[in-house]
Amino acid sequence: MTTSFTDLYVQIQQFYATQVQHLDALEFDEFAATFTEDGEFGHSDGNPPANGRAGITTALSEYQKQRYGDDPTQRRHWFDMLKVSPRPDGSIETSYYAVVLATKPGNPVAVPTPSCFVRDVLVRHDGRLLVRRRLVSPDHVG
Amino acid sequence: MTTSFTDLYVQIQQFYATQVQHLDALEFDEFAATFTEDGEFGHSDGNPPANGRAGITTALSEYQKQRYGDDPTQRRHWFDMLKVSPRPDGSIETSYYAVVLATKPGNPVAVPTPSCFVRDVLVRHDGRLLVRRRLVSPDHVG
Amino acid sequence: MTTSFTDLYVQIQQFYATQVQHLDALEFDEFAATFTEDGEFGHSDGNPPANGRAGITTALSEYQKQRYGDDPTQRRHWFDMLKVSPRPDGSIETSYYAVVLATKPGNPVAVPTPSCFVRDVLVRHDGRLLVRRRLVSPDHVG
Repeated sequence: MTTSFTDLYVQIQQFYATQVQHLDALEFDEFAATFTEDGEFGHSDGNPPANGRAGITTALSEYQKQRYGDDPTQRRHWFDMLKVSPRPDGSIETSYYAVVLATKPGNPVAVPTPSCFVRDVLVRHDGRLLVRRRLVSPDHVG
Repeated sequence: MTTSFTDLYVQIQQFYATQVQHLDALEFDEFAATFTEDGEFGHSDGNPPANGRAGITTALSEYQKQRYGDDPTQRRHWFDMLKVSPRPDGSIETSYYAVVLATKPGNPVAVPTPSCFVRDVLVRHDGRLLVRRRLVSPDHVG
Repeated sequence: MTTSFTDLYVQIQQFYATQVQHLDALEFDEFAATFTEDGEFGHSDGNPPANGRAGITTALSEYQKQRYGDDPTQRRHWFDMLKVSPRPDGSIETSYYAVVLATKPGNPVAVPTPSCFVRDVLVRHDGRLLVRRRLVSPDHVG
């Protein structure tokens, strides 16, 4: 049974909401499980991407530890302007804007990071959507 | 007739857009009418929630008056990363991120409040979606 | 064949994502092509709206040049809280919030402009959605 574009678009919205709530709760295993076994998670900064679920979990855990330590700042990823492009091979290209809002204890404002443009390749595996490749391109490196 | 997940997800997006436009226009009666007669609207701050439509209208009117007076700041609620979870009893759990952007006369920037994580229980009444319970959890109290 | 509300809502989300990615990439011809031949693009500031695709391209190019010159700031339009109201004549009214996030080289934060309330009239032409009229109302002029 083929999925209509409408169904697909909404499934992707729900998929990203679920994925991002894991990320911002620092549930890195659950986040990594939204990638394929051989998934890639890269940034356009010249560094090699994280590869595979274990690699993604490790990369995020280390980044969190080194960059934030026990800083209680709550980070929230926001995505917007989602464009969905199904491909003939059954995979799905998406692109969207992303920003992280950082909220610190005692600070009455949330602070947005530089905006990013993100490109994903999604695939369906046993009916579930998974990310095969994500490339995050910050608009400028702050 | 059962509603597909896709239809439900989109109905909820439209519902929130309508609800929030009322809230930011200070149309508190119209906003309260998007809750059930016995709806609850609470914050995770230990204070008791507002109860019922009249209670919600009163709570919002008083907050607006005390906190903002005749301050002409335009507040806009933004929701993102909507996750929709239908339950067996026909109610619907949702969770999403929320932030308020405050725009003041003469200020060239909008200022975001601390981000919040919101959980709703929605029900359908005579075909219309209504909020039975909303719990807003600010990430940190500023 | 009539389009369901759900299909329409998702088509509009995809339409706006495509349109805005053109705008923020400074692809003004492609952006103008998302309006009808006689499309209007106005702001609630008393100035006359830009008219027609060529007029819209010109207005945007001149604004970009005069306001930003070769400033490398990356601007990203974010839309949220989309409300879709089909009309009996087949056109579609939408309203939504909009803000522009500006990211500058070397600046670790994105800066949001004052929020705007936007009203569009969309029409379908040869199956494609197009904007017949857009009115952008900044909440306050900064």
